[in-house]
Amino acid sequence: MSLPKANSKDQAVVALVSGGLDSLVVAAMVKAAGYRLFALTIDYNQRHRVELEAAKTAAKAFGAERHVILPVDLTQFGGSALTDAAIDVPQASDNAGIPITYVPARNTIFLSLALGWAEAVGARDLAIGVNALDYSGYPDCRPDFIQAFEKMAMAATKAGNDGDAFRIHTPLIELSKAGIVQAGLDLGVDFGISWSCYDPTAEGKPCGRCDSCHLRAKGFAEVGVADPALV
Amino acid sequence: MSLPKANSKDQAVVALVSGGLDSLVVAAMVKAAGYRLFALTIDYNQRHRVELEAAKTAAKAFGAERHVILPVDLTQFGGSALTDAAIDVPQASDNAGIPITYVPARNTIFLSLALGWAEAVGARDLAIGVNALDYSGYPDCRPDFIQAFEKMAMAATKAGNDGDAFRIHTPLIELSKAGIVQAGLDLGVDFGISWSCYDPTAEGKPCGRCDSCHLRAKGFAEVGVADPALV
Repeated sequence: MSLPKANSKDQAVVALVSGGLDSLVVAAMVKAAGYRLFALTIDYNQRHRVELEAAKTAAKAFGAERHVILPVDLTQFGGSALTDAAIDVPQASDNAGIPITYVPARNTIFLSLALGWAEAVGARDLAIGVNALDYSGYPDCRPDFIQAFEKMAMAATKAGNDGDAFRIHTPLIELSKAGIVQAGLDLGVDFGISWSCYDPTAEGKPCGRCDSCHLRAKGFAEVGVADPALV
Repeated sequence: MSLPKANSKDQAVVALVSGGLDSLVVAAMVKAAGYRLFALTIDYNQRHRVELEAAKTAAKAFGAERHVILPVDLTQFGGSALTDAAIDVPQASDNAGIPITYVPARNTIFLSLALGWAEAVGARDLAIGVNALDYSGYPDCRPDFIQAFEKMAMAATKAGNDGDAFRIHTPLIELSKAGIVQAGLDLGVDFGISWSCYDPTAEGKPCGRCDSCHLRAKGFAEVGVADPALV
């Protein structure tokens, strides 16, 4: 899985870059396929603030033509362990169902903003590091969500009105976490700069206990390499 | 056209309240139909800042249970006369096509945020004052956009995943501007507090020349009453 090669050196992709492991691999894939990279990071006032610093480093490392960090304070709405200090970030579990770290409509909000920026700069390609296999049960990481969003984007925009479709690239959607780690290593991604941990109290070192840490560790273990962020 | 009556006194609607004439009528309809009103105003750093003061007054006047004014700086993206100081707000014209006051993906972004808040507080009803008849040619004001968004919201959310649909109420979508003014007057809306003008240089008094002023004047003229905002 990857992005198709760019049709020209002018073709641009607006990519959501959170600073997490997955988003680094997406950014690397965008550049490797020959696109101009417009990196978009949403500062949703997430409790794990260190992610934003990782995003800055990543955007620079991957040669983003522009990097916008847009504050959108989702703590005003609450409803998630990632945005509401009254809800604890849980330790990893094998419980089925959608976990409390689900942020209501997060990827819808993120892709809407990416869509607005893309249309404003004349881009028709968006990229997001969602993953439907090793994901944590989030509904907005699945192919049917992405397809529904693409259809909606056609109806929503001036570009769509003119018959010009938006493509949402999800190059990681069917990969396992190990497959994502391997794809990143193949592209020379330095995972030492990425941050995955959800725990707001983790300082300098990931907690190792939350869902996100758990998935990441499993990915590196399966590939058989050490996680440079833990060294 | 209006909203269906609330099923219970606990049923809540997240309504987008910009401070413009249309959004006031929507807020009045939400209250008249017996819903709890959660008013959401997006401060997208629009050049016509006075709109935000009108939104505050309106949310209070209509008894909003909560009013969130959320900064989302769309000037970072540009691409519209409403968000980019380098583009002049045009005078009203009869030109066909989508005007330069179109803000890329604006209603997609606004509804996404409303969706996030709704899901977080357990609401399944959203309301927005889009209008497909007297509208200015914006694609994201049409029924097919709204329907596509509702479908996408089902795929995007935990609630949708559990089989619970979101309804997007668009009570003004088929009304003329005169019909909207009349509906507001029937509900006792004080249009003196609303602001419609797009011109960022208008101070205290609408410019009377932009598309939005033009449509508003036509609406009041057809109803045969004076616009209280001009008195």
